[in-house]
Amino acid sequence: MTDRTYRVTDIVGTSQQSVDAAIKNGIKRASQTLRNLDWFEITEVRGHLVDGEIDHYQVGMKVGFRLEDAD
Amino acid sequence: MTDRTYRVTDIVGTSQQSVDAAIKNGIKRASQTLRNLDWFEITEVRGHLVDGEIDHYQVGMKVGFRLEDAD
Amino acid sequence: MTDRTYRVTDIVGTSQQSVDAAIKNGIKRASQTLRNLDWFEITEVRGHLVDGEIDHYQVGMKVGFRLEDAD
Amino acid sequence: MTDRTYRVTDIVGTSQQSVDAAIKNGIKRASQTLRNLDWFEITEVRGHLVDGEIDHYQVGMKVGFRLEDAD
Amino acid sequence: MTDRTYRVTDIVGTSQQSVDAAIKNGIKRASQTLRNLDWFEITEVRGHLVDGEIDHYQVGMKVGFRLEDAD
Amino acid sequence: MTDRTYRVTDIVGTSQQSVDAAIKNGIKRASQTLRNLDWFEITEVRGHLVDGEIDHYQVGMKVGFRLEDAD
Amino acid sequence: MTDRTYRVTDIVGTSQQSVDAAIKNGIKRASQTLRNLDWFEITEVRGHLVDGEIDHYQVGMKVGFRLEDAD
Amino acid sequence: MTDRTYRVTDIVGTSQQSVDAAIKNGIKRASQTLRNLDWFEITEVRGHLVDGEIDHYQVGMKVGFRLEDAD
Amino acid sequence: MTDRTYRVTDIVGTSQQSVDAAIKNGIKRASQTLRNLDWFEITEVRGHLVDGEIDHYQVGMKVGFRLEDAD
Amino acid sequence: MTDRTYRVTDIVGTSQQSVDAAIKNGIKRASQTLRNLDWFEITEVRGHLVDGEIDHYQVGMKVGFRLEDAD
Amino acid sequence: MTDRTYRVTDIVGTSQQSVDAAIKNGIKRASQTLRNLDWFEITEVRGHLVDGEIDHYQVGMKVGFRLEDAD
Amino acid sequence: MTDRTYRVTDIVGTSQQSVDAAIKNGIKRASQTLRNLDWFEITEVRGHLVDGEIDHYQVGMKVGFRLEDAD
Repeated sequence: MTDRTYRVTDIVGTSQQSVDAAIKNGIKRASQTLRNLDWFEITEVRGHLVDGEIDHYQVGMKVGFRLEDAD
Repeated sequence: MTDRTYRVTDIVGTSQQSVDAAIKNGIKRASQTLRNLDWFEITEVRGHLVDGEIDHYQVGMKVGFRLEDAD
Repeated sequence: MTDRTYRVTDIVGTSQQSVDAAIKNGIKRASQTLRNLDWFEITEVRGHLVDGEIDHYQVGMKVGFRLEDAD
Repeated sequence: MTDRTYRVTDIVGTSQQSVDAAIKNGIKRASQTLRNLDWFEITEVRGHLVDGEIDHYQVGMKVGFRLEDAD
Repeated sequence: MTDRTYRVTDIVGTSQQSVDAAIKNGIKRASQTLRNLDWFEITEVRGHLVDGEIDHYQVGMKVGFRLEDAD
Repeated sequence: MTDRTYRVTDIVGTSQQSVDAAIKNGIKRASQTLRNLDWFEITEVRGHLVDGEIDHYQVGMKVGFRLEDAD
Repeated sequence: MTDRTYRVTDIVGTSQQSVDAAIKNGIKRASQTLRNLDWFEITEVRGHLVDGEIDHYQVGMKVGFRLEDAD
Repeated sequence: MTDRTYRVTDIVGTSQQSVDAAIKNGIKRASQTLRNLDWFEITEVRGHLVDGEIDHYQVGMKVGFRLEDAD
Repeated sequence: MTDRTYRVTDIVGTSQQSVDAAIKNGIKRASQTLRNLDWFEITEVRGHLVDGEIDHYQVGMKVGFRLEDAD
Repeated sequence: MTDRTYRVTDIVGTSQQSVDAAIKNGIKRASQTLRNLDWFEITEVRGHLVDGEIDHYQVGMKVGFRLEDAD
Repeated sequence: MTDRTYRVTDIVGTSQQSVDAAIKNGIKRASQTLRNLDWFEITEVRGHLVDGEIDHYQVGMKVGFRLEDAD
Repeated sequence: MTDRTYRVTDIVGTSQQSVDAAIKNGIKRASQTLRNLDWFEITEVRGHLVDGEIDHYQVGMKVGFRLEDAD
């Protein structure tokens, strides 16, 4: 097994439902364009308020994925 | 449009149910005395334990609101 | 009442369901071997990804418990 | 001279012109409702982008002011 | 028991005697205008020097207090 | 409205004139290759010195932009 | 001399008198069950307030001790 | 000379040999797909343990590279 | 597969040779008394100087290990 | 080329005009007594307020300079 | 009044008595070789333990002093 | 034994070989002009890249040394 290298990208997932849904939405979108996703780490949880209520959640995440070998 | 100024206040919302409920409880209470709430940001998640179980969650939040013009 | 001393231990709870379940799993396991649990504080939320989906959540926590008097 | 106590409040000043103008706008607004302002400290500098250009700057600041004696 | 919400305010207590006295002075002043004080946490300890000696201590603190129900 | 996902990229803008110009130069270059830029946040301000004078400013920034839907 | 290894444990000492007494109480309790204590480092100073006065101080500390050789 | 802009990407290099080898492996892989690499900064050093021994090192790095002019 | 819980302990490994040797010494000692070691993370690198030269390195590490099921 | 060593010193530049002027004033003063200045990094931006207006800006900076060979 | 520049130096004061005495010892020693001392800020509080008791306190401090004009 | 005071200075050691060599180079240079060196602590590890390879390592360190008594 060769020594792997990973790249880490920062994304912000959002949801009108919950923190958990915002995490899942962000990961789902990331998996549409990145292969070999390996881990995520939450870096911040924020939200937008409208009329005194939570309009949507914003969850910042680092997402790590394995780089394939360049030929 | 004039240049707005916001104030940020720190609150701790609590709940016996979940982290999400503690967030909502805190925002709900803040909206009873502050107008023009605009965003929140979670700063810490703690909880109190009784008899080896979670008695209640404590979620620290910064809550930003727009200041109205002083005349 | 004498002056109490507490110890703080670091654990990582995991769950395939949600962040909340990972918190509860970690606290439950800690309560099996530690007495007088008093509070917890979340220090990080990470997760492992498999095939572009969340395989399990990993929630780092500090857990404080009261030390009993040594005789 | 008695021992003074200060309070620190968090504000966000904004400007469509520059970071410096956002600082000044925030301080100006704070001085309309708070007396005895004593110091400020910048905590974050952000901005909103529209069509690839800076629409306005947002400067987070802590502002300290001396509390007057309560009788 | 309903779910309580707390507010956290930042103050700076000062004293010409010691760090401990600065903490006490700050809490004492805060208790004159805020009800239901519940906890404090020290965020910084600084001091002003005059002629090579400590003129006064400045202790930054977060002070948490329970919000009463709004009707 | 669907739940949006954002990506955050780190850049360093430079300028021989001022901190503000370094911010603007970095945003301008980012807008040439990224669409839907939404916000920025300054992470560090450094500079290179030559002969005891500031040769150029280096401003680190996080830049967030909205991801378009992948089909 | 062989290469030593140390372990670091987190404790919270408390006192109704002062910050210094809370440090000493915590160290004293730790020394009842741990041998070869070598250093400590304060990580946070908090306190509980009752009726507007400090009821007790809580001082978080890391305490390092040398591990004896395992045979 | 025009004002350059740099981009900073996060990678994790790994090695079964040493921290230094993990740094070199990560830089080597990054240089296969990115041009004009200019600097790196280590952000974390972790490792995976198997049977009580270090299986491989994981070194997180920020890597900065100069953006070429977009036409 | 059930949901695992991990514990994280802080150690300081030392060596008169190098940073890498201090890491290995610390892990080796930890593996003598802890089972199921899973990962480590370096938290600080310090050293003691004698006569202007490095006498020994001190590497702080978090070490995570899987807790076995309590019956 | 031999391996260079740098020293980093902390200064606070001030100005009654602007943040940029405070940076320049600090660097200018440092260059009067230190040779081979190489870079600076801003660590904090504060200011003193008098009568509700900014009296002067205080900009904390790390300043790095190359040490000449000791013979 | 011209724009002043300050320098900040890091010291560690020690005492076998208390945290407060360690602060005073450090400031006293600094004032023997530095003029125009203006402020200090505590950065860490540690201590050395011998036979389960505190042998001496070590208090890290930043000390700021005004630079005189260079001619 | 009187209560000692220490000073802490920040340096950056460099090397074209390795992180360890950069540490040693920095300490060696510091020992040429400072007496009573007592400890060091690494604060950052960076490096300069040329043609996709590491040209030299830059290791930031705090170096503590005991101040001799001023008469």
